[in-house]
Amino acid sequence: MKTSVGIGLLGLGVVGGGVARTLVERADHVRQLAGCKLSLEGVLVRDPSRPRSFDVPSSLVTTRVEDILDNPAVDVVVEVMGGQTPALDYIVKAISLDKHIVTANKEVMAKQGPDLLTLARKKGVQVMFEASVAGGTPIIGPLLRDLVSNEISSIHAIINGTTNYILTQMVHQGVGFDDALRAAQELGYAESDPTNDVEGIDAAYKLAILSTLAFRARIKDSDVYREGITRLDARDFLYARELGYTIKLLAIANMRDGVVEAHVHPAFVPSDVMLAKVEGVLNAVEVEADMVGRVLFTGPGAGAEPTASAVVADAIGIARNIVGNVTPPTPLRLSENVRVSPMSDLETKYYLRLNVDDRPGVFARIAKLLGDLDISIASVIQKETDEAAQRAEIVMMTHRAREAAMTNALGLLSELDVVNDVGNLVRVEEWE
Amino acid sequence: MKTSVGIGLLGLGVVGGGVARTLVERADHVRQLAGCKLSLEGVLVRDPSRPRSFDVPSSLVTTRVEDILDNPAVDVVVEVMGGQTPALDYIVKAISLDKHIVTANKEVMAKQGPDLLTLARKKGVQVMFEASVAGGTPIIGPLLRDLVSNEISSIHAIINGTTNYILTQMVHQGVGFDDALRAAQELGYAESDPTNDVEGIDAAYKLAILSTLAFRARIKDSDVYREGITRLDARDFLYARELGYTIKLLAIANMRDGVVEAHVHPAFVPSDVMLAKVEGVLNAVEVEADMVGRVLFTGPGAGAEPTASAVVADAIGIARNIVGNVTPPTPLRLSENVRVSPMSDLETKYYLRLNVDDRPGVFARIAKLLGDLDISIASVIQKETDEAAQRAEIVMMTHRAREAAMTNALGLLSELDVVNDVGNLVRVEEWE
Repeated sequence: MKTSVGIGLLGLGVVGGGVARTLVERADHVRQLAGCKLSLEGVLVRDPSRPRSFDVPSSLVTTRVEDILDNPAVDVVVEVMGGQTPALDYIVKAISLDKHIVTANKEVMAKQGPDLLTLARKKGVQVMFEASVAGGTPIIGPLLRDLVSNEISSIHAIINGTTNYILTQMVHQGVGFDDALRAAQELGYAESDPTNDVEGIDAAYKLAILSTLAFRARIKDSDVYREGITRLDARDFLYARELGYTIKLLAIANMRDGVVEAHVHPAFVPSDVMLAKVEGVLNAVEVEADMVGRVLFTGPGAGAEPTASAVVADAIGIARNIVGNVTPPTPLRLSENVRVSPMSDLETKYYLRLNVDDRPGVFARIAKLLGDLDISIASVIQKETDEAAQRAEIVMMTHRAREAAMTNALGLLSELDVVNDVGNLVRVEEWE
Repeated sequence: MKTSVGIGLLGLGVVGGGVARTLVERADHVRQLAGCKLSLEGVLVRDPSRPRSFDVPSSLVTTRVEDILDNPAVDVVVEVMGGQTPALDYIVKAISLDKHIVTANKEVMAKQGPDLLTLARKKGVQVMFEASVAGGTPIIGPLLRDLVSNEISSIHAIINGTTNYILTQMVHQGVGFDDALRAAQELGYAESDPTNDVEGIDAAYKLAILSTLAFRARIKDSDVYREGITRLDARDFLYARELGYTIKLLAIANMRDGVVEAHVHPAFVPSDVMLAKVEGVLNAVEVEADMVGRVLFTGPGAGAEPTASAVVADAIGIARNIVGNVTPPTPLRLSENVRVSPMSDLETKYYLRLNVDDRPGVFARIAKLLGDLDISIASVIQKETDEAAQRAEIVMMTHRAREAAMTNALGLLSELDVVNDVGNLVRVEEWE
């Protein structure tokens, strides 16, 4: 029986430092749980001279990935570098060398997850990736195991802590996007180049992973429609509140009759549903399934310790199996008979804010334009007039309408001479 | 390789009917997930003539447990009878006959769980019990696997749907306990004898299970202090709301330095924390852990389909292992070095409502009595006077105080000639 399982760590950034610290400082605790020692055998870094949040013995540090992958003492490769290149290559090589994998890499798992799982099955090794979505909050495990008897029909998730922090600031401080972003950057919640977060790219990766597991069909990040939060204005939050909503960057996926729709965008969320109350850097994933109904998982979605919590739990799970000489059955079988519907097929309600000329007949023209496209107005909520400029702001909510029709409408509205500006269009999500 | 795994079902009530229905009506789905057929080989009932929510072929139905336990085609015994007797006996016999176990039985798992897991390990079989807490909402699996790298410091849970429904009615309808209970009974959310639910017995079972897993120490239901919801008055909800709280039946467990405290009782919960928003028959478990921080699991805690969701998922997990010829490592090792502190050691804040004589000096006497016991008043919130009767209602919140002191105080207060009635005492839970 093996008494020690060797860990090779790829990356010693925020998460890698947290993982190394846990393995070293909690060695006894981990040993007790795993049934054997988890021994850190090597750490790949780009720049060994860089100061670290946690110092590993320099004898373990290397800049050559071969030192990790070719080391026979390494049983499990823990990849916490992030990004597709070169992480994907390293993971593939590691699997082909019979190493088990623990990864926190959402981009790799979104793009290549099913391929990696297939390769791993062939080689008889495990690929674990709980940390790739919602940090330390359990969601991958529950989808693969605890909810497995269900047919899952939808996911509604807040899975980007940076944008949730920014939106929470915009709600509570009444600040605009730029100020909220700057505050998030100062606190280290947003990167200096925030594109991946604020444009929904990160959330789309995670939604692709969740959808693939939930619907048991390959959903790639390129299948996910996405729209960021940069267009949101402080005014949108004011109107949302008046209407009984808050605004969240939602990752939504639905499955019906073998057709999946998956989209990430800002959405009006009714103030009284649980997701509306998920604030700051918290993440939350709501799963709707036929047997269990709605279940919600909430917790920290990022950070060194929460992410290391999931990474080390995965490593302990693998170590237990190595010690027990167990090759666990593969829990994921993907169906080929699922297709992804284009965003233009979406049907939802919309919030629409327009700046128009303030004169008679304007609203009638807008209403007719929308009506001709089968977009029915549920209510016109606000009409603020700037008398000096003879302009008015019209805020309306529609009944359910097709996205294709709304796209058409936006084009036609912006061509209307009486419409000065299409302020914003935000989809409205309702819970029964 | 085995192509079929036999299921013996003990009990065909609400949950049993849901399990049987799932195994029969979703046979293909289950087969695909398990990698083999899950074949219903027998069903134990007390009264075969009773009408059922789901009819199983009469050839499978028996009143003799031996027909299930001695049937070599039965690999997995699914126990959904509830109650300790005779379920515990049947489970022990089944394990000794090398059957795997799936159970939804919180009473058995609270009282004998660790013994059953030890017995199962010796026999090389699995005991799965996800359905025993929070119905289909995943919490056992996450504690055993996904959060395993953490030291868990506390649990705050709403794990009895009946009482949460009753309390939600009392909040929103302003009705008293008796009316709310009657409404719950009419809807089938409460039993005709509601003792187990309203006295916190059911929640104490579940908290014992959660604490045992979270703290990796044997916590029995008899270790859990409990107090039911029957003393709550509509007035308490009014005062709670004014003070910015709601009232929930909370199951709380804390672990510090090897000492566990576990208690179930009504508690003031600040209106802005997530648990305050868990309404109706929903359950929620909040886990606080050193690495991940706070994570919250919310979902339906009872009902045929949600509970069957967890039971069948456990059965699928076992079937996968049978097909893969895998004996999974035992995830739970219990420490012997943990003790349970008596309730008198608890330190918390209190809400106290007193009916007193309305004359000068009364409040001073009460304040002195409390002060002498080291109970410091944080605020006196309300003082409603009944001028005709010359009586007043005093509502106060204390700072943190010891339970032993408060128990003393209640005794002494009720002896004071100026105190007509100690209306209610409710513990106040705060989140940082």
